[in-house]
Amino acid sequence: MKAVVLLSGGLDSSTVLYQATSDGCECYAISFDYQQRHQRELEAAKAIAHSAGVVEHQLVNFDLNAWGGSALTDEALDIPTQRSLGEMSQNIPITYVPARNTIFLSFALAYAEARDAGRVYLGVNALDYSGYPDCRPDYIQAMQEVFRLGTKQGREGDAIAIVTPLIELKKTEIIQLGNQLVVPWEQTWSCYAGNETACGVCDACRLRLAAFAELGLQDPLPYAQI
Amino acid sequence: MKAVVLLSGGLDSSTVLYQATSDGCECYAISFDYQQRHQRELEAAKAIAHSAGVVEHQLVNFDLNAWGGSALTDEALDIPTQRSLGEMSQNIPITYVPARNTIFLSFALAYAEARDAGRVYLGVNALDYSGYPDCRPDYIQAMQEVFRLGTKQGREGDAIAIVTPLIELKKTEIIQLGNQLVVPWEQTWSCYAGNETACGVCDACRLRLAAFAELGLQDPLPYAQI
Repeated sequence: MKAVVLLSGGLDSSTVLYQATSDGCECYAISFDYQQRHQRELEAAKAIAHSAGVVEHQLVNFDLNAWGGSALTDEALDIPTQRSLGEMSQNIPITYVPARNTIFLSFALAYAEARDAGRVYLGVNALDYSGYPDCRPDYIQAMQEVFRLGTKQGREGDAIAIVTPLIELKKTEIIQLGNQLVVPWEQTWSCYAGNETACGVCDACRLRLAAFAELGLQDPLPYAQI
Repeated sequence: MKAVVLLSGGLDSSTVLYQATSDGCECYAISFDYQQRHQRELEAAKAIAHSAGVVEHQLVNFDLNAWGGSALTDEALDIPTQRSLGEMSQNIPITYVPARNTIFLSFALAYAEARDAGRVYLGVNALDYSGYPDCRPDYIQAMQEVFRLGTKQGREGDAIAIVTPLIELKKTEIIQLGNQLVVPWEQTWSCYAGNETACGVCDACRLRLAAFAELGLQDPLPYAQI
């Protein structure tokens, strides 16, 4: 079966790509350049797509800077680095991009429909969905209805399925899954800071490092500070 | 109340913009340049947005050519001109762009959230929804759930509402509504052919001309052939 995989180049989406391959899918990766600060992630996405042997990798460009509203796209806002891991999972963070997953899933749906793919894989997970409204299971269910009713295939009873293999997993469990799938962690990228070397202090780096540490493992990615 | 209005520059979305203004909304128009053949439509959108006195008009650029699949974006497919009006409303037409309304509504949602708007206006109508899966009321309802569950406001009980004033109207009824609202028809654009003057023979021109004729009215837009 053909599958479209949303690939940011981070630890989660890279694991999902390897999972889709392991599920026997022919994978079509899709990444987005929305003028995010961490362009470095896109290089990671390309490397991972190549390593996983995808059939095709599409990069969609669009610009969310025009109307601002997120620290990830708005130059005037600072990337947070000082929140505790508890704070991160309780509140909708400043790095939230309005409707981001809705936009991503919409493009993935268009791509899946054009390629006659039966699945769209997305790397949302339990840790995110407490903080982000568009990572929770009820939201995914609502998008599944959109996939069913908004396409030719869906209307004909053959809806493209949204597959979220990580949705109930914690970061440590994702790393364990990725280890089983032999995901090349050194090619992935999580840092929000956008330098050539991961900063080690932003929320994304700290979450990742904490999860490797909890498992007694070494993250093979080099960091500027730990 | 602030409202985001999806504005293509066509007859339907222009009527919707005037309806939103008439409903007392401060309007934020959003248009899309997705490398559609009819760039001329975007010029119409700018003119109409100006005439209606919108607060702001955002143009979002993205490229759906990359994966093809629609006559509107794929240079290899011909624009249909020979179908009967009956055929147009029965089948999903070749001008269907995969997931187009889902992508449009996703960006509108992001924009509405960034501007703290309470409504998103969309010009889908009865004639379209028999042909396009993503114009039907059950699809709009599914997107409404996505708006509710995929945003901060929605999670706090204050979901952005999708408003579709034309959904039960035929083309003739839309023209009657537009006449009441004094929509400047000569500034709107429906033609698929992409020339400086509307062709008069593509599906979009013929639908529009037939509706004006049925009402015994003259479409003020000049046509190459009628």
